[in-house]
Amino acid sequence: MTIDQTYQKLCAELQRIDRLQAVSGILSWDEQVNLPAGSAAFRGQTHAAYAALLHREQTSPKIDQWLQTLEAADSLSSDQQVVVRVARKNFDRLAKLPEEFIQRREIARSRSFHAWQKARQNDDFNAFAPHLEEQISLSREYAALAAKGQNAYDFLIDTFDPGMDAASIEALFVPLEAQLKQLVQKFAASPKQVPDGILKGFPEDKQEAFLREVLKSLGFNFAQGRLDRAIHPFCGGHPEDTRMTTRYDVNNPLDSLSSSMHECGHALYQQGLDTSAAGTALGEPAGMAAHESQSRLWENQVGRSRSFWSFWEPRYRAAFPEQLASIDSETLFRAINRVAITPIRVDADEVTYNLHILLRFDLEKRLLDGSLQARDLPAAWNETSARILGYTPRNNREGCLQDVHWCEGYFGYFPSYTLGNLLAAQLWYAVRADIPELDEQIARAEFAPLLEWMRAKIHRQGMRFQTRALARQATGKDLGIDDLLRYLDERYGSLYG
Amino acid sequence: MTIDQTYQKLCAELQRIDRLQAVSGILSWDEQVNLPAGSAAFRGQTHAAYAALLHREQTSPKIDQWLQTLEAADSLSSDQQVVVRVARKNFDRLAKLPEEFIQRREIARSRSFHAWQKARQNDDFNAFAPHLEEQISLSREYAALAAKGQNAYDFLIDTFDPGMDAASIEALFVPLEAQLKQLVQKFAASPKQVPDGILKGFPEDKQEAFLREVLKSLGFNFAQGRLDRAIHPFCGGHPEDTRMTTRYDVNNPLDSLSSSMHECGHALYQQGLDTSAAGTALGEPAGMAAHESQSRLWENQVGRSRSFWSFWEPRYRAAFPEQLASIDSETLFRAINRVAITPIRVDADEVTYNLHILLRFDLEKRLLDGSLQARDLPAAWNETSARILGYTPRNNREGCLQDVHWCEGYFGYFPSYTLGNLLAAQLWYAVRADIPELDEQIARAEFAPLLEWMRAKIHRQGMRFQTRALARQATGKDLGIDDLLRYLDERYGSLYG
Repeated sequence: MTIDQTYQKLCAELQRIDRLQAVSGILSWDEQVNLPAGSAAFRGQTHAAYAALLHREQTSPKIDQWLQTLEAADSLSSDQQVVVRVARKNFDRLAKLPEEFIQRREIARSRSFHAWQKARQNDDFNAFAPHLEEQISLSREYAALAAKGQNAYDFLIDTFDPGMDAASIEALFVPLEAQLKQLVQKFAASPKQVPDGILKGFPEDKQEAFLREVLKSLGFNFAQGRLDRAIHPFCGGHPEDTRMTTRYDVNNPLDSLSSSMHECGHALYQQGLDTSAAGTALGEPAGMAAHESQSRLWENQVGRSRSFWSFWEPRYRAAFPEQLASIDSETLFRAINRVAITPIRVDADEVTYNLHILLRFDLEKRLLDGSLQARDLPAAWNETSARILGYTPRNNREGCLQDVHWCEGYFGYFPSYTLGNLLAAQLWYAVRADIPELDEQIARAEFAPLLEWMRAKIHRQGMRFQTRALARQATGKDLGIDDLLRYLDERYGSLYG
Repeated sequence: MTIDQTYQKLCAELQRIDRLQAVSGILSWDEQVNLPAGSAAFRGQTHAAYAALLHREQTSPKIDQWLQTLEAADSLSSDQQVVVRVARKNFDRLAKLPEEFIQRREIARSRSFHAWQKARQNDDFNAFAPHLEEQISLSREYAALAAKGQNAYDFLIDTFDPGMDAASIEALFVPLEAQLKQLVQKFAASPKQVPDGILKGFPEDKQEAFLREVLKSLGFNFAQGRLDRAIHPFCGGHPEDTRMTTRYDVNNPLDSLSSSMHECGHALYQQGLDTSAAGTALGEPAGMAAHESQSRLWENQVGRSRSFWSFWEPRYRAAFPEQLASIDSETLFRAINRVAITPIRVDADEVTYNLHILLRFDLEKRLLDGSLQARDLPAAWNETSARILGYTPRNNREGCLQDVHWCEGYFGYFPSYTLGNLLAAQLWYAVRADIPELDEQIARAEFAPLLEWMRAKIHRQGMRFQTRALARQATGKDLGIDDLLRYLDERYGSLYG
């Protein structure tokens, strides 16, 4: 076989594995959208059996052999080198995990997820504590197996955001915390804030109809995607079959709208990947910070802007004439851009949001290094929340039981949200410099130029660049905190300054 | 390893494969319920990649080795012998199929399914003909690979109904045809028939609410099952996660109700299997005739009976007071038990239904032995339909394009419907002999005794008996046509005699 033939073989195999991973994607989506309550244990077994099978395919010796051949070749293009380098990294990590571990982790994850759902419902942390402990221990075991000698938390961060580690995150987060607290104090205390919950009685079916119009206009491709309901909004599936979910609350219509625009940002990234390179580094997202930059940009920079609402407000009023009759334009806009210290991360405004993340970063670092025990989490959460966010939860439902991530073993993911916010702000200033008429386009619901810019700078780049290099490449400067702080100060200063 | 340990290993492996097959089940269900239109090609690739992987697991040499050990042992219980015998039959069939064939067949099947949907919509048989030809050729290839020397059609029939073949089916169908034609003539021409379409304006959501009540009452376990919408009603999934589908037509509410009771019969069988033996012959259904006996019994013998409606009619009227205001009880009951020669099999009443099957049996036999070419199907269909059913389709939508089976390569399945009807009638007389108060129980919506009888006689038997032996075992006599003819004559003679 020539080098080129070997490379083709590798890519075909990675594409086949991409299809097999898509099966996992459908199973996960189905579990959250459709699974009957009494079928959870069975699905856990199914998922575990499948995960082990997939793992065997991902670590077959022939991949290793092809990679060795390609690594020894000196004729690879730079794109081919990216594909080989990332495939090697993935292969080595996975090949070090015994099949027994994969199965055990899947079964524990499914059990833990269902235990967490119940514990949260009943505000019963003690019922969940052993599962949390097991998830921490499995994450440590994962790191010890896959990256012997490396710090466990650093390893986990790198699985979500290639090239990042706790120290590089801390270097951003420490100055960010101080400055964010000042902004929050300034804005949240403003007498111009409107009260919470002024939008009431928005029927679910009408919310959905309006939302579908918005998503279509943003560029979500419904011909290869769906919108369904789930308890927790997420975007899953595959670039060629993208599955978004949302939820509706008749007395909180902005929640569904903004969380759906968030998931739509993920979906647009997914649908913008190069499907001809599926399974290889050229067709995969750069990392979760890059992913969250997209979700947060469409949710916030776009979705809370005056230009966006100048187009959609008349349509929103046409859909909900009675509900909005007594709400004037400025009040509506302030409801959309309300700043307040509230306990739940996913309900947080974009000024306080990052404080929620800093809180989780602080805690998961300690959970992983063992200085904080799982059973002591509630007290530590409440104390850290008071210190960073300025809020002490009244119970664990609005405290340490609120998020799904840890219960499924996703330690090291939370920082990606704030890294994504930093990147989103940088992208926002960069795209405005490139497209001076962006505001006018958005005010005409003309999103194609913005989307095309993201496609070129982020989506179609695949994994050619690691998180920080991608930021430099797309925005011309290093990933930092200045643009986010500038953006927040400009937008919210004009409202609550 | 002792013989017992080997047997345990085999069962554990078969259970693991059962879980992996459940993944296919979810993919298929998802394809029919959820798949975005533009994702069909991608899903075809996914399904093909997965089918090949599953096939490799089903045919791993260790299964063969365990089976050889167990086949040489003389200490197996009779149940263990059943498990080993069926596992050997499945293994040998699958092991003879190259992976390349599995993939090719899956891709062709998915392509053909989507081509058929379009062709049917456009009444364009020529667009579908090459796919049909390919499906016939793939079925022949399947038989040639898996059962060299055996007649292809006989082989295919046996994959659905172990122990049956074309000759044994013909021995039942030839006398059945003559007698059914007489019954149809007598009943369909009766002046007591009510006109079609007298039930109008039944809102879909109210139909669904009523249907859910009925299904729950029959014994469908919603804690491990779902009801969704699909273009074609079916029952898929797994005993521990059963997925039923239906459709609603505001001007034809009885269609949804009866087809859902049909699918519920399948679901009750599935949910009644011994889940502790999943994947082995002790936890799998006996065959498709047995399956259809359950679906048809709940749909027809139960669902069209006076006792059933004596309970549900008041509730039906309460749910649809205006729609039923001008329909008296006897008219409603005759609408439920209307007999008429109509073109579409799935809409057919239970008297004419089997003529639709005899038509398909006649044609698929000829398609498989090559005496009928795919491209000549429309003319042959219309002519055979005129001869057997007494109806000449006006177009191919109501003729040879109406069914999904052939387009997915399911040749040899159709006879199972009529075999199932024969068995259902025999079971009906047998259970009435065992439970003399059955009618009174049904009139109180007390279905547990009937269900428990079926559980014991059919569901929990797994594959211990082949189709004809199961009929003997459960009803005390050979599978024949007398009970069905007697049942039809009794029920419809009393209405239209």
